[in-house]
Amino acid sequence: MILYNDAILERNEVAVSPEDRGYYFGDGVYEVFRLYNGRLFEPEAHKERLLRSAREIRLSLPYSADKLTRRLDDLVQASGVTEGTLYLQITRGCAPRAHGFPAECTPVLMAYCTEAARPAAGMERGITAVTVPDIRWLRCDIKSLNLLPNVLAKQEAADRGVNEVVLHRNGTVTECSASNLMIVRDGAIRTHPANNLILHGITRKVVFRLAQELALPVEEEPFSIEELLAAEEAFVTGTTVEVTPVIEVDGRRIGNGRPGPVTRLLQERFVQEIARQTGRLPN
Amino acid sequence: MILYNDAILERNEVAVSPEDRGYYFGDGVYEVFRLYNGRLFEPEAHKERLLRSAREIRLSLPYSADKLTRRLDDLVQASGVTEGTLYLQITRGCAPRAHGFPAECTPVLMAYCTEAARPAAGMERGITAVTVPDIRWLRCDIKSLNLLPNVLAKQEAADRGVNEVVLHRNGTVTECSASNLMIVRDGAIRTHPANNLILHGITRKVVFRLAQELALPVEEEPFSIEELLAAEEAFVTGTTVEVTPVIEVDGRRIGNGRPGPVTRLLQERFVQEIARQTGRLPN
Repeated sequence: MILYNDAILERNEVAVSPEDRGYYFGDGVYEVFRLYNGRLFEPEAHKERLLRSAREIRLSLPYSADKLTRRLDDLVQASGVTEGTLYLQITRGCAPRAHGFPAECTPVLMAYCTEAARPAAGMERGITAVTVPDIRWLRCDIKSLNLLPNVLAKQEAADRGVNEVVLHRNGTVTECSASNLMIVRDGAIRTHPANNLILHGITRKVVFRLAQELALPVEEEPFSIEELLAAEEAFVTGTTVEVTPVIEVDGRRIGNGRPGPVTRLLQERFVQEIARQTGRLPN
Repeated sequence: MILYNDAILERNEVAVSPEDRGYYFGDGVYEVFRLYNGRLFEPEAHKERLLRSAREIRLSLPYSADKLTRRLDDLVQASGVTEGTLYLQITRGCAPRAHGFPAECTPVLMAYCTEAARPAAGMERGITAVTVPDIRWLRCDIKSLNLLPNVLAKQEAADRGVNEVVLHRNGTVTECSASNLMIVRDGAIRTHPANNLILHGITRKVVFRLAQELALPVEEEPFSIEELLAAEEAFVTGTTVEVTPVIEVDGRRIGNGRPGPVTRLLQERFVQEIARQTGRLPN
């Protein structure tokens, strides 16, 4: 089932216009929500970020935020998906190709749910990564459909036999291809500040809340590749990866090469947060 | 008429899959060719650049370059367009959404011709511009479908009542939203080198050839906003704008505020080059 504008349709009933500005320019924004127990996790934070992304590129939503909430609930119901993701994108709409905004244009919304298990192996054993220059535009805080550099970075990870890339600008770590990166040193959590160079992760914020409850200090300060390699622990945060340990970067072990105690503690608390919000512990 | 993969179809027969990676990620490349007198201008240079863009993002063409040449010729014939543009894009194809390259994926090609008059007013009287920070990714030499920053920049020009934006990185001019920028000082032409920060314009190269024939020196060196404002002349080069004078930037006149003699000379020669390649002087 696909929510296409206002209608919930079968997948084969949806056809995109070749003149959709999403197709010409990547002129649109998106969100990926997580579904546990048939309920959306952190739905308000995702909707708020969607509205912010849209506002930043001056994109109107096709209908009100309240109606969007109702339609997404309808979609979850219709899809029958209980464990998985809800992908949502909105483009500026269809018009003859010209860079500037068209005079009249109706935004095109598309959303659907997909069954997906939690990435258990990575969360349990940890993942490996390599460092790669961050060549993205300077508005990485906007969750836009311009994702070619992320695509190329993720593919580079696959080609080099690791799970993820750590992006850096001149040696300063920003984030990963689709998740935020945090390190632990001297018992404090450090991560890049939420400016124009990283996506302002929802899971990043949830982890901040959990850290506060645990009285773990959080420093929103940039760190270098060297500091990453010398960290006691490292982990990524993201809607689908939740809290996932990073155990190796550029072939070098982080800490003792096994998921560390702060990471494990945050993972435990994160699962409890899922249960609190969605009514039961995730599978 | 639209060339869609291997078939020439009516516009309403073409429907893009919502799972086309062009729609999800802007994972594709494109070209805009100019048509004069029913013939493509600089077709080999455009095809070569398309192949290079595709190679840089490791995208396969759906068929051979020779066949592409034949299909584009068929399209021009079928369209009946004699004065206008041919737009062509190729995406990596359709697959369930995941950043890395899909194991199996057939590229999706779309191309069509549009009637378009030459932008006579701008070419004759010159255009105005404002300077805007260049926030694009660091592979502007790849003509990809990730064009949101260009869209936003072009819209900013419209909002501020000018024709174009001059993009700059920390005060160093790169190019405009969809054209290269050149200045004239002490009788020499200066323009940003063809590295990763600008598109390697076809018209830029044609102008280099014309300048050589006219014994005008060309310096491929970056210049600052101050140098732009102090230039004797400035002009943009691009497939649709050809050679267009820039007469005002940030509210300040360039030179005496009228198109300069070097610009006029290059415009004349450019028109002759069109006639040489396509059989007659353009309208």
